[in-house]
Amino acid sequence: MSMMSAVVKKTADQAELTSMPIPKCGPGQVLIKVQSAALCGTDMHIFEWNAWARSVGIELPYIMGHECCGDVVAVGEGVCGVKVGDKVVGETHIPCGHCYQCMNGEQHICANLKMFGIHTNGCFAQYAVIPAICARPIPGEISHDIGAVMEPLGTAVRAAGEMQVAGANVMVLGCGPIGLFAVAAAVSMGAAKIFATDISPARLEIAQIMGATQALNPLTEDVAQIVLAKTGNFGVDVVIEASGNVEALKDSFRYLRKGGRMALIGLPGKPIELELGREIVFKEAKIIGIHGRKMFETWTQMENMLASGKLDVSPVITHTLPLNKWQQGVELAKNGEACKVIYHPWED
Amino acid sequence: MSMMSAVVKKTADQAELTSMPIPKCGPGQVLIKVQSAALCGTDMHIFEWNAWARSVGIELPYIMGHECCGDVVAVGEGVCGVKVGDKVVGETHIPCGHCYQCMNGEQHICANLKMFGIHTNGCFAQYAVIPAICARPIPGEISHDIGAVMEPLGTAVRAAGEMQVAGANVMVLGCGPIGLFAVAAAVSMGAAKIFATDISPARLEIAQIMGATQALNPLTEDVAQIVLAKTGNFGVDVVIEASGNVEALKDSFRYLRKGGRMALIGLPGKPIELELGREIVFKEAKIIGIHGRKMFETWTQMENMLASGKLDVSPVITHTLPLNKWQQGVELAKNGEACKVIYHPWED
Amino acid sequence: MSMMSAVVKKTADQAELTSMPIPKCGPGQVLIKVQSAALCGTDMHIFEWNAWARSVGIELPYIMGHECCGDVVAVGEGVCGVKVGDKVVGETHIPCGHCYQCMNGEQHICANLKMFGIHTNGCFAQYAVIPAICARPIPGEISHDIGAVMEPLGTAVRAAGEMQVAGANVMVLGCGPIGLFAVAAAVSMGAAKIFATDISPARLEIAQIMGATQALNPLTEDVAQIVLAKTGNFGVDVVIEASGNVEALKDSFRYLRKGGRMALIGLPGKPIELELGREIVFKEAKIIGIHGRKMFETWTQMENMLASGKLDVSPVITHTLPLNKWQQGVELAKNGEACKVIYHPWED
Amino acid sequence: MSMMSAVVKKTADQAELTSMPIPKCGPGQVLIKVQSAALCGTDMHIFEWNAWARSVGIELPYIMGHECCGDVVAVGEGVCGVKVGDKVVGETHIPCGHCYQCMNGEQHICANLKMFGIHTNGCFAQYAVIPAICARPIPGEISHDIGAVMEPLGTAVRAAGEMQVAGANVMVLGCGPIGLFAVAAAVSMGAAKIFATDISPARLEIAQIMGATQALNPLTEDVAQIVLAKTGNFGVDVVIEASGNVEALKDSFRYLRKGGRMALIGLPGKPIELELGREIVFKEAKIIGIHGRKMFETWTQMENMLASGKLDVSPVITHTLPLNKWQQGVELAKNGEACKVIYHPWED
Repeated sequence: MSMMSAVVKKTADQAELTSMPIPKCGPGQVLIKVQSAALCGTDMHIFEWNAWARSVGIELPYIMGHECCGDVVAVGEGVCGVKVGDKVVGETHIPCGHCYQCMNGEQHICANLKMFGIHTNGCFAQYAVIPAICARPIPGEISHDIGAVMEPLGTAVRAAGEMQVAGANVMVLGCGPIGLFAVAAAVSMGAAKIFATDISPARLEIAQIMGATQALNPLTEDVAQIVLAKTGNFGVDVVIEASGNVEALKDSFRYLRKGGRMALIGLPGKPIELELGREIVFKEAKIIGIHGRKMFETWTQMENMLASGKLDVSPVITHTLPLNKWQQGVELAKNGEACKVIYHPWED
Repeated sequence: MSMMSAVVKKTADQAELTSMPIPKCGPGQVLIKVQSAALCGTDMHIFEWNAWARSVGIELPYIMGHECCGDVVAVGEGVCGVKVGDKVVGETHIPCGHCYQCMNGEQHICANLKMFGIHTNGCFAQYAVIPAICARPIPGEISHDIGAVMEPLGTAVRAAGEMQVAGANVMVLGCGPIGLFAVAAAVSMGAAKIFATDISPARLEIAQIMGATQALNPLTEDVAQIVLAKTGNFGVDVVIEASGNVEALKDSFRYLRKGGRMALIGLPGKPIELELGREIVFKEAKIIGIHGRKMFETWTQMENMLASGKLDVSPVITHTLPLNKWQQGVELAKNGEACKVIYHPWED
Repeated sequence: MSMMSAVVKKTADQAELTSMPIPKCGPGQVLIKVQSAALCGTDMHIFEWNAWARSVGIELPYIMGHECCGDVVAVGEGVCGVKVGDKVVGETHIPCGHCYQCMNGEQHICANLKMFGIHTNGCFAQYAVIPAICARPIPGEISHDIGAVMEPLGTAVRAAGEMQVAGANVMVLGCGPIGLFAVAAAVSMGAAKIFATDISPARLEIAQIMGATQALNPLTEDVAQIVLAKTGNFGVDVVIEASGNVEALKDSFRYLRKGGRMALIGLPGKPIELELGREIVFKEAKIIGIHGRKMFETWTQMENMLASGKLDVSPVITHTLPLNKWQQGVELAKNGEACKVIYHPWED
Repeated sequence: MSMMSAVVKKTADQAELTSMPIPKCGPGQVLIKVQSAALCGTDMHIFEWNAWARSVGIELPYIMGHECCGDVVAVGEGVCGVKVGDKVVGETHIPCGHCYQCMNGEQHICANLKMFGIHTNGCFAQYAVIPAICARPIPGEISHDIGAVMEPLGTAVRAAGEMQVAGANVMVLGCGPIGLFAVAAAVSMGAAKIFATDISPARLEIAQIMGATQALNPLTEDVAQIVLAKTGNFGVDVVIEASGNVEALKDSFRYLRKGGRMALIGLPGKPIELELGREIVFKEAKIIGIHGRKMFETWTQMENMLASGKLDVSPVITHTLPLNKWQQGVELAKNGEACKVIYHPWED
């Protein structure tokens, strides 16, 4: 048996489930049997082959998918720290190991960063090859399905951690998977009041299930006014931006308190106009961009919280499908019915 | 009506509930009607009039007690920031306002620190006068009884916050009230595994109710061995020392991981011997003393967590008694039956 | 003798040196004999009575000036921590003492902030009254002239401190007084390469005297290209923005390294357009607004550095004039001949 | 030519300069031509073969020495990030790359740490093999001699950085090379008053050349009293312990201010007795062990400071000798005449 099923993006217009050779793992690589793979917004852009997708250096045809959990079935030459049988999750960021950032504790923002599943073949397949440095062994208590969402979850955990949410009042902008994960992380880390916004009532409902104190729809509610009223009129301590919506972000400066902190995760499609004096200087706002997980401090923290039951993100996984129904997953995500879709490559 | 009931320490040998004039509040002071007052280990030393109590500058006779919550009934000249009708908790640390520490954001460790209920009359009474700077208004959602324990709780919240417990494995040494509060704070802030030690089975049971993962009795269990086994053999990330027991602390260096953090709250009665090379330098241990609450960052954080229901410490309050049964409370505490005893000065 | 000389802004069009009653100090205030007062860009706006000046709540007529150093000649009721004879500098930020920020260690960005010399009479006079909380006693080693610029210097010291410049490569945008002070602070704190930009050759020259490694004029040089070439092509670790120029700031994102830090001090007259994905998120830029000095951590740090001779800012003071030549100072500042002008109210 | 000169520790009693084969570099290793090697206190223990030396797992015979700078002449298979011709310094700490610490940004305190020149052949030789991960390329502006002391210098730079010395008053205990380096680092990073202690007048003199404000000899001066008098009676902000002397350390708690910080580098030969209540808890002392350099954040910082001329440590290098005079260096160090001795393996 040397062939496997995989979702291959073949051309700008076409992606399909097809039979592909099981890849070999070279030096410094591991081969995993994929048990769960998760569909991400990035994958949607690649399916659609929009401007962004065309710009990031993807070489077609290739196997899609970058969020996954599986079991190691082979390790290449020179690999240590991970072994056959380990349950591993793939970290998407592939660092070069030698640039300024890699040599200074910031390999997750490597100057020469490559992305698993974008610049390499990915994990919408029965097997996948990952660089050993990106194959993170996880505790057995964490299921394959939860493992498959740890990559985006880690971004949210990182943001909540950097924002020091314990005892703070927090706003999460956007209730896509990362926003919902941020709500969960904030709950677990002791945030006091947690506000969350989205324009989808279904997602706002999940936000409340995840533990948001109040879920707000900017289409029908005056978010700033409500938040100010609920926070002694001085505003929230923390804003976590996971919407990519510049209007929501712009509005949030109205209710970020003086001295407040802001984590930016979302990627807006257009520029934002900021009044630096009023919005940042006088307010002494502290703003930080978050691009993924510290490797591997964030993973350690997240694994500890998941394995000990202190962090529960299962409500975000709304659908699990066999990989051969990948198109159905894409549809569910596109029409907003699904939040996070998991593919199982070994089910029918 | 100008008289009130109060527990007065009269002489080295004697304390009694007696009738005292209701105090007047001078400039910069507030008068509160005490609704709940909590018995602290410090009070036990003062009742006993042990060496420590004789050394800290208490002038007898005086009204005892320093942990309390009440309602403001009068404010002195020049007081702002607190008004008649406010529900307030007394911060014990009275800063001078002008020393190096006070001028540099550390008034809680003022060089000229005075202690409410030690260097002033205290709160085991129907009314008490507190310096306005130490009268902290709290949200209405917090009950008077919980308010009365916020002073020691704040010490624990501060320690858990400084230790950055989110996702970390934590050991709490000692399950007296502050240790138990530390367990609760660690739970609320997302600690992963939480170990707690004490020699009292009753207190270990409360530790588990508070959320400790594992409660250990050093009299019957090999704490270091168990903790190492449960933490991948590298040890815990954090130790919070709330026992004042130098043997327990000494032992904890065996299972504090390399690079780990340690908060010292307990006050040992004797010196500790440390091997700095092995226990601190090679391990790069980070050790910090915690003496009370940041004024008032810790209060803000704690109030937010209590008011939003993210922190629940009610199991620590094992007994509530009318103030005229104060001796019964002292007995319950002395024989280890009680954990935290609350006095109600207006009940019979 | 109950009268004194003072520069009074009388109407939108007029300011003049005139005789005024020596003010009395009320409770919580101190009266100082002004020895040195410094002219600030803010004063220029007030002289011109531009849109900003008309909007900040100034009530005419009033005595101008907010940067000064003098000797305490009287203290009001209830004042402690400062006494007659002390050499003091005026902190401009007058905190309310009771808002969320004041109660949480951030009184310098008090929610109800008032400004000395804007919302009160100021220090372009022989005497001035300052709130006791804003009268900062300084070491005798610091001269009155240097004392008079410690308010803007503190903003720069704060920025350099927050940016952790030791061993870092730093860009300072804008070589007005605060930018030059930032260069000096960065030098003192161990910054490695220090770049500075301005369009005035005279100011660039002072920047080099202050210790800038390279002073760059964006009118004639390709700043981004030069900075990248001098920093291994990965860019600077730190940008301190003291120009208020949005083009300069926008450009700096090109050479801020991945993971770099940015302090915003300058107040742009117009909005900036930012591409959050490229400029902040992927880069994990850390941006913080700086509005003045921590009260009083920054003062302590700055005084220690000045008194020990580790920080020398004298080259920034280009002119000292008797107060009755105040108009000449304004002219020198307006035409760019002067950098920092100091007035001496007791000289002719 | 396949032979080289090397100082070999042959037996407990004997070390000698002898001819050895030039080593080959295997996979993941680099071969350097050693230009400068520095004699360290650790080497003295090994020459003497004292209890410590016998306990750390050295296998005799072997080539001694662990502080060096040289030029890469060959790289093994799989090496990237360093190439033939690079000027490199050897980092002594050899991390395993897979333990908890290595995976969490703390590889310098790897759980399985090996030491170059202790657990491997070292650099008192004309050539040496180092693990590629420990071969740190340095800027050309840094000389080979300065390069050879960057390993201990980095420990001092790290300590000064962790202690946030800018504008702080600092005590450095012990003026051996690391203590002197700490003085230099504190000067460069903007420390205000810098006190240094030692019992050797010669070393105290170097401390003053390095920039110490005051050099104190505890044999003849009351250190605590002097320091308190010079720091407004509240004490220093920072203590950097580089003496390994428990009496000096114990004494320093008397003049460490409330809220002060302490870095422990020295390795005492006996335990210290601490009164935790008075010395740590009430004082809220913050104590951190320092075991080497962050890999490689500290190196980056140190290189930037050295290459830009902001850090000058040349006075610490008192002697340079050809390697064949190694015994003379040992004598100079033993009798206290030398501070730091550099060997040149290619000179006669």
